[in-house]
Amino acid sequence: MHRPRWGDPARTTELPGAAATLAGESAPHHGVDPDTITLPGPAMSDAVRARLAAIVGAENLTDADTARVQHTRGFSMPDLLRLRAGNAVDAPDLVVYPGDHDEVVEILAACARLNVAVVPFTGGTSVVGGLAPDATGHDGVVSLDLRRLDRIEEIDEISRLATLQAGLRGTAAETLLRERGWTLGHFPQSYEGAGIGGYAATRSAGQSSAGYGRFDEMVEGLVLATPRGTVELGTAPRSAAGPDLRQLILGSEGVFGVITSVRVRIRPAPAGRVFDGWRFASFEQGATALRRLAQDGPLPTVIRLSDEVETAINLADPDQLGGESSGCLVIAGYEGEADEVRRRRDAASAVLTDAGGTALGTEPGEAWRTGRFAGPYLRDPLLDAGVLVETLETVTLWSKLHGLRAAVTEAITGSLTASGTPPLVMCHVSHVYESGASLYFTVVAPFGTDPLADWGAAKTAANNAIRAAGASITHHHGIGRDHRDAYHDEIGPLALEALRAVKAHLDPDGVCNPGILI
Amino acid sequence: MHRPRWGDPARTTELPGAAATLAGESAPHHGVDPDTITLPGPAMSDAVRARLAAIVGAENLTDADTARVQHTRGFSMPDLLRLRAGNAVDAPDLVVYPGDHDEVVEILAACARLNVAVVPFTGGTSVVGGLAPDATGHDGVVSLDLRRLDRIEEIDEISRLATLQAGLRGTAAETLLRERGWTLGHFPQSYEGAGIGGYAATRSAGQSSAGYGRFDEMVEGLVLATPRGTVELGTAPRSAAGPDLRQLILGSEGVFGVITSVRVRIRPAPAGRVFDGWRFASFEQGATALRRLAQDGPLPTVIRLSDEVETAINLADPDQLGGESSGCLVIAGYEGEADEVRRRRDAASAVLTDAGGTALGTEPGEAWRTGRFAGPYLRDPLLDAGVLVETLETVTLWSKLHGLRAAVTEAITGSLTASGTPPLVMCHVSHVYESGASLYFTVVAPFGTDPLADWGAAKTAANNAIRAAGASITHHHGIGRDHRDAYHDEIGPLALEALRAVKAHLDPDGVCNPGILI
Repeated sequence: MHRPRWGDPARTTELPGAAATLAGESAPHHGVDPDTITLPGPAMSDAVRARLAAIVGAENLTDADTARVQHTRGFSMPDLLRLRAGNAVDAPDLVVYPGDHDEVVEILAACARLNVAVVPFTGGTSVVGGLAPDATGHDGVVSLDLRRLDRIEEIDEISRLATLQAGLRGTAAETLLRERGWTLGHFPQSYEGAGIGGYAATRSAGQSSAGYGRFDEMVEGLVLATPRGTVELGTAPRSAAGPDLRQLILGSEGVFGVITSVRVRIRPAPAGRVFDGWRFASFEQGATALRRLAQDGPLPTVIRLSDEVETAINLADPDQLGGESSGCLVIAGYEGEADEVRRRRDAASAVLTDAGGTALGTEPGEAWRTGRFAGPYLRDPLLDAGVLVETLETVTLWSKLHGLRAAVTEAITGSLTASGTPPLVMCHVSHVYESGASLYFTVVAPFGTDPLADWGAAKTAANNAIRAAGASITHHHGIGRDHRDAYHDEIGPLALEALRAVKAHLDPDGVCNPGILI
Repeated sequence: MHRPRWGDPARTTELPGAAATLAGESAPHHGVDPDTITLPGPAMSDAVRARLAAIVGAENLTDADTARVQHTRGFSMPDLLRLRAGNAVDAPDLVVYPGDHDEVVEILAACARLNVAVVPFTGGTSVVGGLAPDATGHDGVVSLDLRRLDRIEEIDEISRLATLQAGLRGTAAETLLRERGWTLGHFPQSYEGAGIGGYAATRSAGQSSAGYGRFDEMVEGLVLATPRGTVELGTAPRSAAGPDLRQLILGSEGVFGVITSVRVRIRPAPAGRVFDGWRFASFEQGATALRRLAQDGPLPTVIRLSDEVETAINLADPDQLGGESSGCLVIAGYEGEADEVRRRRDAASAVLTDAGGTALGTEPGEAWRTGRFAGPYLRDPLLDAGVLVETLETVTLWSKLHGLRAAVTEAITGSLTASGTPPLVMCHVSHVYESGASLYFTVVAPFGTDPLADWGAAKTAANNAIRAAGASITHHHGIGRDHRDAYHDEIGPLALEALRAVKAHLDPDGVCNPGILI
């Protein structure tokens, strides 16, 4: 991956005709080659560099411009637009590659003494500003790239647990586990870029969450490096030994320290799979069907519902764009032993039929499955063509789902229309629980005169609508800097101060990802 | 319930012949009538009483000896032995009955200013010293009895959530929910005594945890009263909005404040049920069968495995006591719609058979189900007869289960044998997870010359064995004061200090259940 462009360069995608029509008359906006960006000299002193080199070895740190640019910010649309414009002012001063947990602890302790901010880096795929700390008052920023912590430390086949180092990419972890007959079952949209430590630090949720659970539900143990030493948690799957402190570290986004390994639940690699498509007349009808599966079962491994607009786009029929409803597409996928796949598929299909669904066969299901990691590849050609494209997501109770969807859609549409660039707003449900579900919005609009400002206003309107509806500001993207205000509103001042008290204890000098989350 | 004796006085149990043989020649040890205990005058000043009366009304607080004794300590064997001996030195000085959340906040704020320790009280059934704070340096102790917070505030039938006030007894909550067609499905051994707030504050787990989950898994939202105000958490079932702070409050045992209500998952009241008994040749064989159900399914609603000794006792055949193995009893119970019960029972029975089990039909299952809350009633007649009886529990990974069971059994047996009172140690598995399971030990021995000291030594030996095996010090009893040292060892010094930092923030004067947990 060579930012700002997503994924494997060999898989660069052409803009499909349907999407190209959105671009209108806009001129191309390809942006600068990131390798040509020249950064101001690193703010880091030679003394700091020497101190860190003494820990990791001189060959495991660099202040080369290319490396610094490649560790700059994440993959939100504002991040992409800024880097395309040659703006890399948030580049770290130094990139450091520790070799093990103890080196991470040493680096954090050294940076605390040296007043240097530290940003943990695994895949660098944050879409919420999680990699752009507020380093005001610090003597430089280190990007702590964990790529050398890339081993499976242990597999306990009896207990079905694997201990994974934080720098393992999701794809590499899955490959190594499959070689032993296991799967993690975690496939977020960022799968081709993200890493294990990032999954844990941001409470990632994958497309197969109905079958395998969210990443925070898979983690049974973790090791955290802090400037003051090591915290190791998780003696058993569940316990009544006080608060579940694992849940205090999961989602902490690097502000308490750096997660260096996690012990996660694994499952036998599935022998079979079937992915079906279903059509529902309306989003409401489809949501009721998903709710029945979530509450009374059986849950497929993957279950998703696209609204009318997203369904029309997915069907790639330009005539449908903005037109009348062609219904709502549901994807229901089943993985496991052949018998179990058959049983669950039969039972779930009976529920979906009873709830008003029409079976579309496996073709739409397989099309979704095989294309499911292609979405991020579309962003670059859309931006090249002058089309603003961004996603945001939330989660709420079933009883509040439709009100929330309407409020967020209206907020985004109203804001971008006021900016003179009326958007297309699509929505899907991709994660279901007994009591509620996620909503994931995709927004597409032609560039106006100031796409960054236009999107900033729309995002603020969406955040306000989410909080006004009593929903959570994020289901799986995390907080970073972009959701910080809404997050503080969500948890309230006393809880926020409690988190700050924890940080003041584990990171008294405030060098761990400052300005993120809290 | 009239402590120290358990439960409904009308259901007082005679000691069965098998158990009575344990008592040997010991003289009766009935203990004093708690109503005859005269306490030293309350340490609380009139000014404090007047201040709290101004909040709750004079009719909602008392310093009568009977009320104070009834709020003294919990139901561990040491607690019972001390109260039977007329020792109520840990009695609170005042019992206060707030009427709503705001009154709880006011009481906590007032007690913080007045330097008065506060012990939250719902059922008072702690078996780990959770109700006996260390009030050194405080100007008295208030027992904050939440019994007036006894309503279901809201039922969201679409999202299947109910908001329950903390003072509701488990039995009352279940009755109110059943009237509306719902169940909580939470049936701990303390069911006849415990309350909702206690379930949450101690991470209770019920006998149907395989089907309905642990209490901490049911809670989706909660309201905490602290001396500094209110913390309200839980906007959605799951979220990536930072650490899951609900999990910081669950299990906090009153040291951050008082949980006044929880929003919990509810399920349709089951239409049908079947409980089967199964026999396995050995504990190891039975555990493997349970592991297969936990990992590959289907999970029954209730699944338990007794070891050879407990099985022999359960079969109530005195000839078996201490004799050769009669095998190990498994209880597998299924609840739900009739079709679903049949399907899960058929599939689970096939697994149990394949794993070497012999079906015993529904008689042992029904016997367990109908007698399942009778256990605690046996403690009083056993103590009356001079028989030491206590339980303890832990949880670990499947790969460590048998080593842990052997180590704990040996530790207890060795310690009590050295004290001259060789015990009978029984064990069962009653909660299973994909990666591990709980172990629950019941210890019975004749009184020696100092039962409190003998048990104290045995308990320390058991705690050390649990920690040496890397297991958690408690699966569902909690920490209180009795597990504090082992708990601190389990989470390590940095995590402990982080918890203390949270407490220092929410309860800066340290009046909330001091000496408990941290």
